[in-house]
Amino acid sequence: MDKFFNAESIVVIGASREEKKVGNVILKNLVNNYNGKLYAVNPNASEILGVKCCSSVSEIKDSLDLAVIAVQADLVPRIIKECGKKKIKNVIVISSGFKEVGRYSLEKELIKALNKYKVRAIGTNCLGIYDPNSRIDTLFLPYDRLKRPRIGGVGFVCQSGAVGSTILDLAAEENLGVSKFISYGNATDIDESDLIEYLAKDDDTKVICAYIEGVADGKKFLYAIRETAKIKPLVVIKGGTTTSGAKAALSHTGSLAGSAEVYFGAFKQAHAIKADNFKDIFNFLKIFERCNKPEGNKIQIITNGGGFGILCADYVAENGLSLAELSKDTKKILKKKFPKIVVINNPLDLAGDATDERYRIAIEAMNNDKNVSIILAVVLYQTPLLTDGIVDILLESKKPVVVVATGSSLIAPIRKRLEANGLAVYQFPEDAVKSIKALVEYYLP
Amino acid sequence: MDKFFNAESIVVIGASREEKKVGNVILKNLVNNYNGKLYAVNPNASEILGVKCCSSVSEIKDSLDLAVIAVQADLVPRIIKECGKKKIKNVIVISSGFKEVGRYSLEKELIKALNKYKVRAIGTNCLGIYDPNSRIDTLFLPYDRLKRPRIGGVGFVCQSGAVGSTILDLAAEENLGVSKFISYGNATDIDESDLIEYLAKDDDTKVICAYIEGVADGKKFLYAIRETAKIKPLVVIKGGTTTSGAKAALSHTGSLAGSAEVYFGAFKQAHAIKADNFKDIFNFLKIFERCNKPEGNKIQIITNGGGFGILCADYVAENGLSLAELSKDTKKILKKKFPKIVVINNPLDLAGDATDERYRIAIEAMNNDKNVSIILAVVLYQTPLLTDGIVDILLESKKPVVVVATGSSLIAPIRKRLEANGLAVYQFPEDAVKSIKALVEYYLP
Repeated sequence: MDKFFNAESIVVIGASREEKKVGNVILKNLVNNYNGKLYAVNPNASEILGVKCCSSVSEIKDSLDLAVIAVQADLVPRIIKECGKKKIKNVIVISSGFKEVGRYSLEKELIKALNKYKVRAIGTNCLGIYDPNSRIDTLFLPYDRLKRPRIGGVGFVCQSGAVGSTILDLAAEENLGVSKFISYGNATDIDESDLIEYLAKDDDTKVICAYIEGVADGKKFLYAIRETAKIKPLVVIKGGTTTSGAKAALSHTGSLAGSAEVYFGAFKQAHAIKADNFKDIFNFLKIFERCNKPEGNKIQIITNGGGFGILCADYVAENGLSLAELSKDTKKILKKKFPKIVVINNPLDLAGDATDERYRIAIEAMNNDKNVSIILAVVLYQTPLLTDGIVDILLESKKPVVVVATGSSLIAPIRKRLEANGLAVYQFPEDAVKSIKALVEYYLP
Repeated sequence: MDKFFNAESIVVIGASREEKKVGNVILKNLVNNYNGKLYAVNPNASEILGVKCCSSVSEIKDSLDLAVIAVQADLVPRIIKECGKKKIKNVIVISSGFKEVGRYSLEKELIKALNKYKVRAIGTNCLGIYDPNSRIDTLFLPYDRLKRPRIGGVGFVCQSGAVGSTILDLAAEENLGVSKFISYGNATDIDESDLIEYLAKDDDTKVICAYIEGVADGKKFLYAIRETAKIKPLVVIKGGTTTSGAKAALSHTGSLAGSAEVYFGAFKQAHAIKADNFKDIFNFLKIFERCNKPEGNKIQIITNGGGFGILCADYVAENGLSLAELSKDTKKILKKKFPKIVVINNPLDLAGDATDERYRIAIEAMNNDKNVSIILAVVLYQTPLLTDGIVDILLESKKPVVVVATGSSLIAPIRKRLEANGLAVYQFPEDAVKSIKALVEYYLP
């Protein structure tokens, strides 16, 4: 499997001269990013984007670690045979037109060829991989329309190319770092379970996210997610959980989506974290990438907006979480240090005229209070007295801090600074609280 | 009530020379935005920010439509008497320190003064109003930290200043237009019901959003929201729905939050639209500002990403909504016009290589198909073949179109163009579908 991500030489089979064509975009992205040896196959061209073209892989003299295949579906089995003869052991089949459009026999023919030559394949009907470390990028989506995230701890396994790529785009936007991304489409050979198990063992991956439409081998999948969740958090989202969604899944990646209840039961049993929607994915990945295991489940809300404190308290209760009860000592200290308008409670409302100093006092008190295990800090930077110093103050916390910083692009700089310093920052209280729930449920079951 | 929003002369009582102080920020924002006559009261200054200061309103010779009061709580009753003698009939009391900190007698004294002189007050403990038409803006939040939205159809009524102001900030970011915004705090005189009823009759307001912590007069409130919802959509979010949230509400705006079930029951009975969280607010306001009443509830999904189609279909089913079944004629036409990889179904998956033309054909077909009443169009602009022409094509729809355009800042320009043309655009499918549900439930109960 490593060869997919560490390949020192890659050939693009089906490279195209025509701009915006799949075989052109893939080659261009590799030319612009990848530092290994690059080859192209196109029988009708001698050179594309500065890469010499051959009419077949057999003409290439050097050894090849990885082939990226983007030719018409009918040609793929023959291409696999040629790769096999050339001793290429890893291929990514971008091409679609197999079981997802009902061509089961063509897919079988392809599997036969893979088995015969012991070639391992990601795909068919997929985007392939993006690895920010080795800079291998087989996504046929241009860089001016799809952002690529920085190096980081999130490993993605996605059945759908569209879902996967937009997740990648948004991960970049949200400053989530990625270890490896794999869009595996029809799972013709390597499947979701193989990939999840691989990422479980991958040291660069701190948390895994999987988008699944259908699973062919349920037993294997359950084993894979159960063993993985023992090692690191695994966030799973399932497409095709309803009859109409499942029908659509069949014509998308040829997957039998199966009963949603069975899947959800399996997730629960395996201790995987179920995401209900896109928002959940980003919320959960953020908290798992940025927060470590909390000592307990008692949440203290600190806010400079009363209404936000109320809504946070509501969401904590609605999510079945617990508010901390400050110790008598803490209350005494805070009463002494704060002006009267600050109500010493949970939520601790530092009021609209809160200064950095009030937050500093609060964080210091929480560090010394054993009743508090997680801090939910609302930082409304719209108020005039807060400064950028708030970042360092929050970093002084010895307990996991989850930040709510709501607002427009005017407050984006402070949000980015908080994020760049490793804090989990949310736009809305409901997202922060739901994420804390996922964190607590995973680490303190 | 009109005088609050159309005042031709305003006096700021408690104007301050000190930068970042409430009485300074309010005056500065009025100086920079308001075109009417402006006066200031501060006994220790002769002039602030170019505005002449008097030591009391009695010294001002001109008549005054509105007073904005930002002095210490204890002084407010006396100030109200002075305003009364000066025949100022409308005041906004920004000052806090009344019942929310347990000073019920001071609040009563204030009410007595208001009644004696027949002065109507917004506040206490509030931000006051923002009216983009008359440019009256009493929010003590600086323009470099809080965006103000453009003129538009959404009227906001907010008990919490922090919640209200961040909603305003985000409304500007999301390009939602505002008719009038009122933060009313303790509701000492004018309450949520008065304000909602006022906006119900206001022609500039197309949809109302209210954030409520507690209501003193339940009967009046139920009547107000019921009558309002008959005229225009009313989105309501309630703070303090749980025991801990309610406790926090008491020390915030001195409100008895009451039983959540009673409120939710009242919302339902009155046909108001309940928002569960911040995200809901923006989602719902967007669809009500941008979409008219649909003819029916049958949704057709059009997508260029298969996984997105599946998730949309899932969310439609989960939300109890209905997918359209295309007529035989439509299916025949589409089969003829589309390549084989396009599966004519619901979702209609135009595939990753979809062009503008495929969307044009689809929209045209939906216009002619009576089985379709709402279009949910997924537009993944990351794919290379879509162009900006997609905007005009979606505008050709004769049926309400809700757009899902997911992605990073790279696709923000197309999202903004779609929005600028009046389309309701969502980042995530789950948000789009939940909003359609709100639309259908309001217009087709």
